[in-house]
Amino acid sequence: MLIEKLNWRYATKKMDPSKTVSDEKVDRILEAARLAPTSSGLQPFEIFVVTNPDVRARIREVAWDQSPITDGSHLLVFAAWDNYTSERINASFDLVNDERGFTNEGWENYRQMLLSTYVPREAQVNFEHAARQAYIALGMTLTAAAFEAVDSTPMEGFEPEKVDEILGLREKGLRSVTILPLGYRAEEGDWLKDLKKVRRAKEDFITEIK
Amino acid sequence: MLIEKLNWRYATKKMDPSKTVSDEKVDRILEAARLAPTSSGLQPFEIFVVTNPDVRARIREVAWDQSPITDGSHLLVFAAWDNYTSERINASFDLVNDERGFTNEGWENYRQMLLSTYVPREAQVNFEHAARQAYIALGMTLTAAAFEAVDSTPMEGFEPEKVDEILGLREKGLRSVTILPLGYRAEEGDWLKDLKKVRRAKEDFITEIK
Repeated sequence: MLIEKLNWRYATKKMDPSKTVSDEKVDRILEAARLAPTSSGLQPFEIFVVTNPDVRARIREVAWDQSPITDGSHLLVFAAWDNYTSERINASFDLVNDERGFTNEGWENYRQMLLSTYVPREAQVNFEHAARQAYIALGMTLTAAAFEAVDSTPMEGFEPEKVDEILGLREKGLRSVTILPLGYRAEEGDWLKDLKKVRRAKEDFITEIK
Repeated sequence: MLIEKLNWRYATKKMDPSKTVSDEKVDRILEAARLAPTSSGLQPFEIFVVTNPDVRARIREVAWDQSPITDGSHLLVFAAWDNYTSERINASFDLVNDERGFTNEGWENYRQMLLSTYVPREAQVNFEHAARQAYIALGMTLTAAAFEAVDSTPMEGFEPEKVDEILGLREKGLRSVTILPLGYRAEEGDWLKDLKKVRRAKEDFITEIK
């Protein structure tokens, strides 16, 4: 059943601007993203949900004029932490302690290990690591959208610095890494809609070591 | 229902070595990974499915001695392309043409654009880009495992160069980026099993721009 849904989904190139994804569906899709596992549980990214038409029109201008950005009803912007800082790491570990109601020596040692290895590391290395974690959530978000029979179009074709400027991300210590319009496929005008989904054959993708 | 399954899953710290995930389940989990969307459809990674006990024991030695690597029944190793090359890009575009049975001018122009921008780019930049795509598949694989009621433990805590050496990845132009044991949680001995799953609150994770 999961496989059927993954076969149903495709990178929708033309969305129907008259259709809106319901709040309930968007909430469940975002909850899947929030539940995504990440390295050390840091969740080093945030998601911006843009419905404002003017803001989406501005983003479309710096994203190769791709129509789903404005023809969909919601635009998700995945923004990764630009760096790991003591504040961010401590906030994450403190949250775990608060939620679980106790501290644990192993966990506290692990915190110190992360503080001593991540914080002095080059910002770009930390950002790349954070970006990968955002992509785990992207994979789960795409799956959740398919489960809701909602179309989505994962995009890297945009100017990240400009999107960061439009949304004021840099001053929040964030950098846009991928954007994902949500909406419903248009009946006509999508060159990709009826074409075969192509993937490498299993034998060119999987190697068994028995 | 998806949300329930994502709440059920957790990074299993102790697996039951007496239990084996069936081939049918492993096949469906890998099919989810194969169906993952990737930038320009390049699928710039491969998955190694290690069941061989000796090989898994050697990997465990270079992965902080984490027991699920050998106590699970399967170890998935996600290995990203170390670089984008003309051969790899052309093979991907040629496959699309073969499968769809025609060529398309826009698609051929897109191929040329990728060849001219990706191939001259620094290998590390290309590798990081490929690694992100592997993480989309990781997110979908984790979700698929949860759907099969199979436990899994996403891990970055290993020495990638050593895993590359054990599996002979570098000579194939691949670099390990994340590993994922599959198996079944042990009834006892897992410190994390009964602890609360902690995530940042929605309001600290999602920003709406209306």
